[in-house]
Amino acid sequence: MSRVQGSTSTPRSVTAFAPASVANVTAGYDILGFAIDDVGDRVTVHRDGRGGVGIRSVVGVVPDLPRDPSANTATAALVAMLEDHPLPHGLAVELDKGIPLGSGMGGSAASAVAAVVAANRFLPEPLPAAELFPYAIVGESAASGASHGDNVAPSLLGGLTAVVGLEPAEAVHLPVPKGLQYVLVHPHLAVETRSARAALAPDVPLERHVHQSMHLAGFVAACFLGDLPLLRRSLVDLVAEPVRAGFIPGFADAKAAALAEGAIGFGIAGSGPSVFALVDSAATSRAVEAAVRSVFRGHRVEADGWVGPIRARGAEVTRVDDGP
Amino acid sequence: MSRVQGSTSTPRSVTAFAPASVANVTAGYDILGFAIDDVGDRVTVHRDGRGGVGIRSVVGVVPDLPRDPSANTATAALVAMLEDHPLPHGLAVELDKGIPLGSGMGGSAASAVAAVVAANRFLPEPLPAAELFPYAIVGESAASGASHGDNVAPSLLGGLTAVVGLEPAEAVHLPVPKGLQYVLVHPHLAVETRSARAALAPDVPLERHVHQSMHLAGFVAACFLGDLPLLRRSLVDLVAEPVRAGFIPGFADAKAAALAEGAIGFGIAGSGPSVFALVDSAATSRAVEAAVRSVFRGHRVEADGWVGPIRARGAEVTRVDDGP
Repeated sequence: MSRVQGSTSTPRSVTAFAPASVANVTAGYDILGFAIDDVGDRVTVHRDGRGGVGIRSVVGVVPDLPRDPSANTATAALVAMLEDHPLPHGLAVELDKGIPLGSGMGGSAASAVAAVVAANRFLPEPLPAAELFPYAIVGESAASGASHGDNVAPSLLGGLTAVVGLEPAEAVHLPVPKGLQYVLVHPHLAVETRSARAALAPDVPLERHVHQSMHLAGFVAACFLGDLPLLRRSLVDLVAEPVRAGFIPGFADAKAAALAEGAIGFGIAGSGPSVFALVDSAATSRAVEAAVRSVFRGHRVEADGWVGPIRARGAEVTRVDDGP
Repeated sequence: MSRVQGSTSTPRSVTAFAPASVANVTAGYDILGFAIDDVGDRVTVHRDGRGGVGIRSVVGVVPDLPRDPSANTATAALVAMLEDHPLPHGLAVELDKGIPLGSGMGGSAASAVAAVVAANRFLPEPLPAAELFPYAIVGESAASGASHGDNVAPSLLGGLTAVVGLEPAEAVHLPVPKGLQYVLVHPHLAVETRSARAALAPDVPLERHVHQSMHLAGFVAACFLGDLPLLRRSLVDLVAEPVRAGFIPGFADAKAAALAEGAIGFGIAGSGPSVFALVDSAATSRAVEAAVRSVFRGHRVEADGWVGPIRARGAEVTRVDDGP
């Protein structure tokens, strides 16, 4: 297909939604993540005769984001994508943030994912989702300063995912054990991803590496086996949580409260300050959410909460404007 | 059941066989292992009126082993087992070693496993295999100086296993992808487990920890998915192989030769000097074995080789003498 044909058939604008996600799931630092319902970012990409990639507007819960195309995760992802898949026109981005900045809910990833999913419709031959994965990772690294795909994968692909490679970037879906539900609680504290990453020790003692890896292997096997008791024993984080819990007032109490209410496991979402629990029923999810929010209130911190089954659907195009 | 009843119904001697195994399977350092056919250790445990645990004889390919019950892996395992499950009589061990010492083929583990599997028949109520796992690990640590279960698990349980916990010790079977075969080549060089462990750096850089963990997650997922291409990409060892390959003359050439012959992956078995490959057909297994042995011959090192499907059966009792 020639460029001219491609350009005449391209839409005027495309809107895509990418869900929030929980990453760094305990032993799966930079590896395991899952998508959540109800919250996400929405990106509208407009065909722009001026060429290049730019930001037209940012609205929603985070109005203040970098406007430099190389520093904003949505546009940085598009710049990387267009290097491999050039278009005969520019792209202008409208960003509607539903995910609070610095919440640990994968907002940087969701903006990048929604942007590439929307922009994909402008390609003469749209790519399968797995091929969009590396571009969204490049985008996210504009915010975090590091390449990791554990938010991008679930936001893009939905479900519960494991990143199994970065060169090339590759993720697989893990089966979600029957009945598994999440609780996500966002205390209103800001933790910057860069600072949270910098707080980690540069090295992991070999013995701890082995133990964390056992828990990761146990987590992956438990998902395929549908073995909730093994999942419970595997939801352990020996690498990030011991350091990062210190950034979250009340973390230890919140964890104890969640486990006392029957949570299968509890941990820090992404680099925090959001925390998550995995539970085996909707009733438990509500009890855990209430208990965790109550702990944060006791620390004079307001918190939002979400509960539900892990979102199976990934990012999706929600509107296409085919006008001239 | 009273002790007297237990003692009158116990056998005079029990013989058990435990297979050799390949551990430290690439990204699964101290975690992943599989059992092999044709080679193993055989332990006969005799009821002994003198009490305690002792060694009666050692025969086979390794006649020179510690006779102190706390230093020999077979008897050390039995001492630990009898602490929790006391017997009204002693146990005397005949050890028939089929696995060369310091070969990387899990000989220390196999002796411990065969001992506990044989001794289990003396208990009034024999334990399920999973409950023997911790005792065999204690036994093996008498040889290596460290607790790890990646040889014990496949030798005891058979198949392809992942250790998912040490406190308490726990392992799971991973499904063996259809058609998967192993090649195991033992070059006649001695590498002592303690030295090979000591050569490893005490810390793993965080980024390497994450990459190794991605490959481990990929390996486990690939087994459940039966995804040989993913298995191939996941058979990477960033932690032990870069250091330990230096103990094995010709390792890099052997690896290159194996991969050139179509191996899915190649690595060091245990702490070496044996090396293994995973392949997807019997024909490839023979070609890889020949190529690897030829490389070692080029380094003036004789080598034995084994090929076959991963052994599904674990350790087993082969003879019971019920005489008085």
